[in-house]
Amino acid sequence: MADYSAPVTDIQFVLNDVLRIDQLYDLPDFGEVSADLVDAVVEEAGKFAAQVFAPINRVGDVQHSTARDGDVVTPNGFREAYQLFVDNGWMSLAQDPEYGGQGMPFTVHMVASEFWNSANTAMALCPMLTAGAIDVFAAHASDELKQIYMPKLISGEWTGTMNLTESHAGSDLSNLKTKATAHDDHYRIKGQKIYITWGEHDMAENIVHIVLAPLDDAPAGVKGLSLFVVPKFLVNDDGSLGQRNDVQVVSTEEKLGINASPTCVMSFGEGDGAIGYMIGEPGQGLACMFTLMNHARLEVGLEGAGLSERAYQDAVAYARDRVQGRDPETGDSATIIHHPDVQRMLMQMRSMTDAMRTLCFDASMSHDIRTHGADATSRAYHATRFALLTPITKAWCTELVNEVTSLGIQVHGGMGYIEETGVAQHYRDARITAIYEGTNGIQANDLINRKIIRDGGAGFSALMQEMEDTLAQTQGLDGLTDAFIQAKAYLRETVEYILNKQADSKLFEGSVAYNFLMQMGYVCGAWYHLRAAVAANQQLLSGASNQGFYQRKLIAARFYMTHLLPRAGAYGAAVNGGSAISCPLDTSAFG
Amino acid sequence: MADYSAPVTDIQFVLNDVLRIDQLYDLPDFGEVSADLVDAVVEEAGKFAAQVFAPINRVGDVQHSTARDGDVVTPNGFREAYQLFVDNGWMSLAQDPEYGGQGMPFTVHMVASEFWNSANTAMALCPMLTAGAIDVFAAHASDELKQIYMPKLISGEWTGTMNLTESHAGSDLSNLKTKATAHDDHYRIKGQKIYITWGEHDMAENIVHIVLAPLDDAPAGVKGLSLFVVPKFLVNDDGSLGQRNDVQVVSTEEKLGINASPTCVMSFGEGDGAIGYMIGEPGQGLACMFTLMNHARLEVGLEGAGLSERAYQDAVAYARDRVQGRDPETGDSATIIHHPDVQRMLMQMRSMTDAMRTLCFDASMSHDIRTHGADATSRAYHATRFALLTPITKAWCTELVNEVTSLGIQVHGGMGYIEETGVAQHYRDARITAIYEGTNGIQANDLINRKIIRDGGAGFSALMQEMEDTLAQTQGLDGLTDAFIQAKAYLRETVEYILNKQADSKLFEGSVAYNFLMQMGYVCGAWYHLRAAVAANQQLLSGASNQGFYQRKLIAARFYMTHLLPRAGAYGAAVNGGSAISCPLDTSAFG
Repeated sequence: MADYSAPVTDIQFVLNDVLRIDQLYDLPDFGEVSADLVDAVVEEAGKFAAQVFAPINRVGDVQHSTARDGDVVTPNGFREAYQLFVDNGWMSLAQDPEYGGQGMPFTVHMVASEFWNSANTAMALCPMLTAGAIDVFAAHASDELKQIYMPKLISGEWTGTMNLTESHAGSDLSNLKTKATAHDDHYRIKGQKIYITWGEHDMAENIVHIVLAPLDDAPAGVKGLSLFVVPKFLVNDDGSLGQRNDVQVVSTEEKLGINASPTCVMSFGEGDGAIGYMIGEPGQGLACMFTLMNHARLEVGLEGAGLSERAYQDAVAYARDRVQGRDPETGDSATIIHHPDVQRMLMQMRSMTDAMRTLCFDASMSHDIRTHGADATSRAYHATRFALLTPITKAWCTELVNEVTSLGIQVHGGMGYIEETGVAQHYRDARITAIYEGTNGIQANDLINRKIIRDGGAGFSALMQEMEDTLAQTQGLDGLTDAFIQAKAYLRETVEYILNKQADSKLFEGSVAYNFLMQMGYVCGAWYHLRAAVAANQQLLSGASNQGFYQRKLIAARFYMTHLLPRAGAYGAAVNGGSAISCPLDTSAFG
Repeated sequence: MADYSAPVTDIQFVLNDVLRIDQLYDLPDFGEVSADLVDAVVEEAGKFAAQVFAPINRVGDVQHSTARDGDVVTPNGFREAYQLFVDNGWMSLAQDPEYGGQGMPFTVHMVASEFWNSANTAMALCPMLTAGAIDVFAAHASDELKQIYMPKLISGEWTGTMNLTESHAGSDLSNLKTKATAHDDHYRIKGQKIYITWGEHDMAENIVHIVLAPLDDAPAGVKGLSLFVVPKFLVNDDGSLGQRNDVQVVSTEEKLGINASPTCVMSFGEGDGAIGYMIGEPGQGLACMFTLMNHARLEVGLEGAGLSERAYQDAVAYARDRVQGRDPETGDSATIIHHPDVQRMLMQMRSMTDAMRTLCFDASMSHDIRTHGADATSRAYHATRFALLTPITKAWCTELVNEVTSLGIQVHGGMGYIEETGVAQHYRDARITAIYEGTNGIQANDLINRKIIRDGGAGFSALMQEMEDTLAQTQGLDGLTDAFIQAKAYLRETVEYILNKQADSKLFEGSVAYNFLMQMGYVCGAWYHLRAAVAANQQLLSGASNQGFYQRKLIAARFYMTHLLPRAGAYGAAVNGGSAISCPLDTSAFG
């Protein structure tokens, strides 16, 4: 495995040239943010990820974080690395200055988060969950709860978790068995939650559990759910830590990957009941939780981009080093990077990663603008745009990362299958991302139902118009646009087909949703490559230094258009021709 | 994880109705083989796999086979299971009666091998390697060596290995450092080999290593390589085991999967040199080894089919059991098999597995006929056909198995990521298949260069004609044929494009080979589904019992045509539009 090096130049190109992040700096809430500041933050974050998180990625995979006697001991070096993370203020980057945050755009946090994920996905999950908890407090908690919890979460001294799933309730939360009972100013929680990421560990002095549960007298179903904060240690009035709360880890799961991240079974209320405080209104629990989950969905998409970047770096380093066979042209002994089929694999990894990353940051910028936009119109526009891009970001990136990390193994040949090499870890770590924070099937249903059908395709049409605007800037890039124009037209036809067909059967949406999401993902990926090509071409024409860098962006774009964009057509065909097949299946069809 | 149940009905349909295996029973060499006998063998093999190999699959994954002090201890139950395998004669199924074999068609061996692979891929590798060694002896060894080794290998009392790779020499064997020196009637071998599957273990009394190495005075390059048999224990004149030979296991690799299969570093000649005997002529080592590798390539493709079948069975069982959400039509609480997106995943797994299996057995039947065919014409026809189908079988099936086993995880949601569930093992076990026995990149180059370009597309055209013949039988199946006709035409265009372009650049073949192989694989898969649909439709029209079974075959075929065959177009587009991009890349394109 090669040393990780943060792709700072690539990131700065995406932020500054492709996505024009400078439009954020003009917003009132970001008055103190500047291009120079962001560039400096990006560089420092890249160094931190490479120097502190990356070196302990493999030991984390080997040692695991495992529950023993109610504690979870993290792998060697994790406590120290996390402490440095807190000390350097990385947790607070994009958080509210009122509670000790640095007030940077969310997009800048996401850039740093890409680095954390490339360097050490298992570690990165801990601050990711904390950030989600912060969002929940910020949006829904009382001032009193905010004052107690937000500064400590924002500093990273305390970490957060998200407690939804129970053994019988995964994607469907309508029948939770964990219950909350009112007692004076607080609630007593009893029940068991599973799959709690970083539910217990030794890296922070307190852990703040956000728990979804119905009040004991609540109506059945998701509308009876409320949200509670349940700290590991209760907090005294002076802010110091008090008694241990009645919540503990029962066990940790042995997983395919992200082994350093403890996946806990958590037991609430084995004694008198865990003390919790309600966040938001009774019965609004799921709505409040979605605040956290929307945020987390972008970050999980970003895990895909981050792991892909890491896999790419490892593969290129190996391909430059490994001598095998002969150069087809010269006949000389050659490193494998000279073999056309290895180049195909590397370029696929490169162009997929570039597309994923740009999608993640584009969605992040819409989040920034929907929240901090200068006027209601732009906030509303980007709220719709963010909602549309979120399921695509989550699902498309996490589908692709399986393929990219698999190619990373393939480039290594037999070495890739040996765990010591380190690239199999990326493949194992990546596999969860298509599942958690809402399976990709759930994302696809969200996209087609809430983001396409519900507004009759209005948000979709607006995005199509943005793609048209890009096409208007592609002078000199003719070879890149034909396949995109075709794929875009087919995508629009597909949306019309969906809007026309959706009333025919209740099974229709689910039967085409995944293929539609993938089709749209590949078209969006092409759009980002086209935007990158436009930006790179401008730099080339203006005689910028580093011409090789911009040429590489054009090569990656051309590769994507010829090798990957055709897949949009294949997925579209499955939508247009497929619903008639998969809709009416009786379960006996499966033997 | 569900109990494995051998898909006997599916297999018998493929053999009897789709591929018409009865044409083998008419061949002189198979005079004693009958449909009843084969059906009985298939049933018994399925039971053996389910009852003996499947139950120890998970313990093998957990315990690993690991080298300690020169020995390799296999997981609990492996010795006993292998002994039963030998006692029941499963090793000798398709072997030469002259040496104790049962003389069944190779295709019948492959059916059994699918079961072994579904039940326990790591275990299945041991007899797979032995079968390869037997082939090498049968084709190239002296009568004396045959008499000594073949009966014991054919009974399974001794197992075989294949020693090619060295740490600096994987796909490229032109520069091996292991050397052989002539001594009287034998050779002394010195050197180290890596990635030796089942190189050392405790399941058999002797291990027969087939070793590729140059004589110490041989010319450089692959034409200097010879092949040797190096037994773990030397064999006395009376056939009893003699002295331990100078060969030992150094270590075993920690791998992503197939953990019960020890992947050994083997050291030959740490003392006076390991005693070996040459097989075949000096300098013919690689040619002889290809005998083994061609055989092994089909079996590795079959690993893909076998693991896919297992993953499918697990996924269906879970989907029938897991209650989550509501039936979109009725609104009632439902098992997830009622959700359209889960049905999409299951049907993709089903239809891919059916296509893979049929391809594997079709290629196997060509192997039987090229070897045992009644006349020279049919032997020659099937020799070409076998050569054409081999790289597709190996590479296409092993690409697809990664997707099928990944879907198997996805159907399980979070449970799929937990190792205890058992389906993550299939995903890990599967990942090696695209690498060993020649990476899929090597397979793709073999296909385009030796099997398409070298004969100017003659073998390809013959296969196209077979597809035409199938189309002539599709009365009543109109909905299934349109997409196939289109995809087949595009494949032919692509081959013409390749034949026209190949002289332009030495980089051309390698730059399009993989995408071409995948395109051809998907078209072949559609052809097999069409043949299955023709056969199923005939059964339906003739009023066969088990109508549901035949209806399922039509459903799987329709799903494949709408959801998967469109991918052939996407890969074809990458061939037709792509070479111009990936051919001329300077390595600086990778940053």
